[in-house]
Amino acid sequence: MGLQQIPARRGKAVRLKQGERIRIVNTHGTQVVDFWAFVSSSMNEYMGMEQCRATWTRLFPVEGDRMYTNQRRPILTLEKDTSPGRHDTLMAPCDNPRYGLLGCTDYHDNCRDNLHAALFELGLYIPYTPASLNLFMNIPWQQDGSLSFDPALSKTGDYVIFRAELDCVCAMSNCPQDILAINNQKPVESHFEVLA
Amino acid sequence: MGLQQIPARRGKAVRLKQGERIRIVNTHGTQVVDFWAFVSSSMNEYMGMEQCRATWTRLFPVEGDRMYTNQRRPILTLEKDTSPGRHDTLMAPCDNPRYGLLGCTDYHDNCRDNLHAALFELGLYIPYTPASLNLFMNIPWQQDGSLSFDPALSKTGDYVIFRAELDCVCAMSNCPQDILAINNQKPVESHFEVLA
Repeated sequence: MGLQQIPARRGKAVRLKQGERIRIVNTHGTQVVDFWAFVSSSMNEYMGMEQCRATWTRLFPVEGDRMYTNQRRPILTLEKDTSPGRHDTLMAPCDNPRYGLLGCTDYHDNCRDNLHAALFELGLYIPYTPASLNLFMNIPWQQDGSLSFDPALSKTGDYVIFRAELDCVCAMSNCPQDILAINNQKPVESHFEVLA
Repeated sequence: MGLQQIPARRGKAVRLKQGERIRIVNTHGTQVVDFWAFVSSSMNEYMGMEQCRATWTRLFPVEGDRMYTNQRRPILTLEKDTSPGRHDTLMAPCDNPRYGLLGCTDYHDNCRDNLHAALFELGLYIPYTPASLNLFMNIPWQQDGSLSFDPALSKTGDYVIFRAELDCVCAMSNCPQDILAINNQKPVESHFEVLA
């Protein structure tokens, strides 16, 4: 099906068979892509950041790492990463109340609603929102435990490739955050493709 | 009702009214207590570690911090902490498959099942397991992002007090982890009490 666009501020979901790969491209280099994965046969089993960190004993994934579900099974492998490799596992996907805390009084596009809309396009519904793997999101930590929301370190065309270890549903959201610095205050489109 | 015991390797849950406080005591100083909170009127709204970190912009809570739900509302305030203040927000509550990865072939007591059993004692059921705030759990991070499972830094009788900002259900599990070092390989009891 070739390279597909994920529109700015919006999400997409796609089914992968075991062994298939998904390539997610940071088209402009500045865009954070929130990412989730669910086991096709049971949407209750999903990629869990708290389970991944416990097995990696690391705050972020590197090439070769497996992504673990809340049942501690590998669902994806990070096969390739051309970016500087800063992907965030710490921050919740943004949601409308989050923008309320940041001062917004009207509805704001957000990754949580994008996830559910993207799944709904595939006829899927889940009653919860797992923590996301925030691709290309640069959240440095300090030795005192402090965290900050910084611009992405990736460059135009950087991409990651994940291989499916199980039949799964992958969902992505171009983060519409335009208040904090993570997307250079300018949410844009990204692309993905499924590889055999 | 006074000081209540949480037996070694087991969990307990209790309801708090807004304004009430819960004191959780590390009776022997060496025990990790996994901790969750749910909004009484809607168990779908719960304390979320990924939401807390995003608002704190810190990896761990300190006195005065509010705990945020997945709807970004304050549910608890950490009013007092006599421990050295290392509480983990990064690691998933242990579950039976986790012990499988650590080499166990039989069922192993675990915090996930303790949570659900404790809620069930109150007549409550939830179809998911939120990330836990792991009280007294010492998971140091390094500047390169690496993490380790280390013995608790707290001492006999250290405690935390949380004030309820909403009517809520609090659940605790004495972590039965006896393979990694976090409980000095010796899971023991802890205590809690509800204060007006």
